[in-house]
Amino acid sequence: MNWIINSLLDTDFYKFTMGQLVFLKYRNVPIRTAFVCRTKNVWISDFIDIEELRRELDHVRDLRVNNSELHYLRGTNEYQDRMFGEDYLRFLGDLRLPPYHLEKGANGQIVIEVRSSWSEAIYWETFILSIVNELYYRKLMSRLSPFDQELVFAEGKIRIKKKFVALAERPAITFTDFGTRRRFSREWQDYVVGILAKEVPGTQFRGTSNVFLAMKYGILPMGTAAHEMFMIASGIHHGSDEEILASHREVLDDWWRQYGYGLSIALTDTYGTDFFFRDMNAEQAKKWKGFRQDSGDPIQFGEKAIAFYKKHGIDPKEKMIVFSDGLDVQTMIKIHDYFVGRINVTFGWGTNLTNDLGLAPLSLVVKPVEACGNGLVKLSDNLAKAIGKPEDVERFKKIFGYSSTDSQECRY
Amino acid sequence: MNWIINSLLDTDFYKFTMGQLVFLKYRNVPIRTAFVCRTKNVWISDFIDIEELRRELDHVRDLRVNNSELHYLRGTNEYQDRMFGEDYLRFLGDLRLPPYHLEKGANGQIVIEVRSSWSEAIYWETFILSIVNELYYRKLMSRLSPFDQELVFAEGKIRIKKKFVALAERPAITFTDFGTRRRFSREWQDYVVGILAKEVPGTQFRGTSNVFLAMKYGILPMGTAAHEMFMIASGIHHGSDEEILASHREVLDDWWRQYGYGLSIALTDTYGTDFFFRDMNAEQAKKWKGFRQDSGDPIQFGEKAIAFYKKHGIDPKEKMIVFSDGLDVQTMIKIHDYFVGRINVTFGWGTNLTNDLGLAPLSLVVKPVEACGNGLVKLSDNLAKAIGKPEDVERFKKIFGYSSTDSQECRY
Repeated sequence: MNWIINSLLDTDFYKFTMGQLVFLKYRNVPIRTAFVCRTKNVWISDFIDIEELRRELDHVRDLRVNNSELHYLRGTNEYQDRMFGEDYLRFLGDLRLPPYHLEKGANGQIVIEVRSSWSEAIYWETFILSIVNELYYRKLMSRLSPFDQELVFAEGKIRIKKKFVALAERPAITFTDFGTRRRFSREWQDYVVGILAKEVPGTQFRGTSNVFLAMKYGILPMGTAAHEMFMIASGIHHGSDEEILASHREVLDDWWRQYGYGLSIALTDTYGTDFFFRDMNAEQAKKWKGFRQDSGDPIQFGEKAIAFYKKHGIDPKEKMIVFSDGLDVQTMIKIHDYFVGRINVTFGWGTNLTNDLGLAPLSLVVKPVEACGNGLVKLSDNLAKAIGKPEDVERFKKIFGYSSTDSQECRY
Repeated sequence: MNWIINSLLDTDFYKFTMGQLVFLKYRNVPIRTAFVCRTKNVWISDFIDIEELRRELDHVRDLRVNNSELHYLRGTNEYQDRMFGEDYLRFLGDLRLPPYHLEKGANGQIVIEVRSSWSEAIYWETFILSIVNELYYRKLMSRLSPFDQELVFAEGKIRIKKKFVALAERPAITFTDFGTRRRFSREWQDYVVGILAKEVPGTQFRGTSNVFLAMKYGILPMGTAAHEMFMIASGIHHGSDEEILASHREVLDDWWRQYGYGLSIALTDTYGTDFFFRDMNAEQAKKWKGFRQDSGDPIQFGEKAIAFYKKHGIDPKEKMIVFSDGLDVQTMIKIHDYFVGRINVTFGWGTNLTNDLGLAPLSLVVKPVEACGNGLVKLSDNLAKAIGKPEDVERFKKIFGYSSTDSQECRY
């Protein structure tokens, strides 16, 4: 049987960086996460055999982090020596992913929910996404003749080559593979990353978010934190508007205490970038390495970041922005050229890197919806990416002084 | 060891149709054939390891037509019941290809010559061409990275698909694979023909000249005769200009006696199409199925053929032209559309079908140069394709009343 997931390290590195902090501080916080297909006009349940999906998910529950994998994590020292502690590694060695609930939903949706402690539930996200994505593409492929299937891969290879050629002309542009969750297939991501590792200089291709592939190809595993850190923290500290507001700062403080400079790239858009720049103080601005931009207009964001640093008397040229929203080569060139000489720029390249074979990508997410019984919210810099019950979204908009009305369809 | 040639049937069908007539009538005629690379600016010996080439050629000499292959030929009834006689099949079963002479030549050429009886030497042509071609592309490929090698195949697949899409819109255009001698590799021709057999209706993809692949895929083996029939006949009947002139007609008469209507497609350009149409009489014109066009301007040729038929009171709509010179999809569409409703048209598609992966094709030929000690000549409708010593060419031009001065570089 050719399972989609064969290793619990076949996931994003940030699942472990967040996972350790959650294990240490919020181990038994009950959360609920839900899968959503954001792509309009795709009735995802028409493409996925629920029982096949269940078998793939059950197989993930049969997997354990093995001893070599624990060695690899223990030996990870690129950001901080012994960044993963023995307690956490022991926990990982014993980890079995918690049960999930799966059923066909209304309007062609598929319901996948996990209710469990955050410290265990956190690992489901990327596995669910990788599996649903791969089953979807397997279905699309099964409708093609064997030759047309080969053509999909031929087209994919030629598109990779075009990317290489365009980027070889721009060696100053650096990037990382962030494509695990939206990959065409496990095998295809493996292929792409293997080729990148061989064909693109390490000064340009900096690594991958996928821990298994980083291990396989001897390259840098990359990632820091996701929206779920801030979102779930708001559900834990939920007594009053002030507590919710303060929970965002607490996450940043906890993160710094745990990982220091090495992983100090802050995700800015959970409650909108304008709030983030109002809330972050001069000391944090000075200490943290930089920001990750994941929604809204990247140029506007960069200008805001530069203005923010200047306001605090910090030279933006010592700081870094990781752009990770809906990238392709042209967008990367445009962003890079726009900011060159003003602030350091790098790219976390997802869907368009690992799922560009001519078949339209899906926009799938697994997001936390409840923590400690409280509804969670993400506002983001693009309201099309907002998550939360309408009344919660309104409440959070007020708490975080969110005024943007930008909304555009998620490409990926 | 992955030999290039693994079966003596991995050759063009016309080697056997001609081969039988030669066996029956000209068995012990001594001939000399020579390999030539017509592609300018390619020093072929820089790309080919002579000893590797020798091993591949020697391996062909180790091959025998096996019993199943003899069964296949014996069972071939698409043109004529039992078209191959038992004497000839016995000869084939015992056949070992004759010795050859191989050395590095001047100016980057490779000398490959065969001096032997025509009935045995005839089989070398396509094997030499397939082997030199494949060694050449192996060399080009070896200079690419593994990924760039994959891209060559990816590009090749996409080009095949484009051909399919264009031809699917034009179901009235019919064609046959004639690409054995110029194929990128054995494996690639096999791949292309396999895909054609599966993806293109048999009403459009009519078969292949390659006997091994026709056998493998259960499709029609196709081919009639080549210039060598006429050329060598001129060397045999060489007493006077009149005998040389008459030798052309004799070939056509022998061919008709041997194969009748089934294989009655005449190659017209050995000594120029104008001579051919002057020489062929009304009775032949009426009996023969049609012509194969292999050099010069295809539209002009078709017009000449139609005029020829009309002159003899024959309806061209009952006749057929097989175009086989330097085809691609656009050329086929152009020729087809030009003659639709006026004369039947079909295509023998070579290099651009089996060697279109983005690497430039070579123009290689193996041609008879001497028979019974006499120099041989091909004039063709494109003087760039002419073969023969200058004084012989001049003599033959006079004998056959050749007046054309057209010359254009051979694309393939």
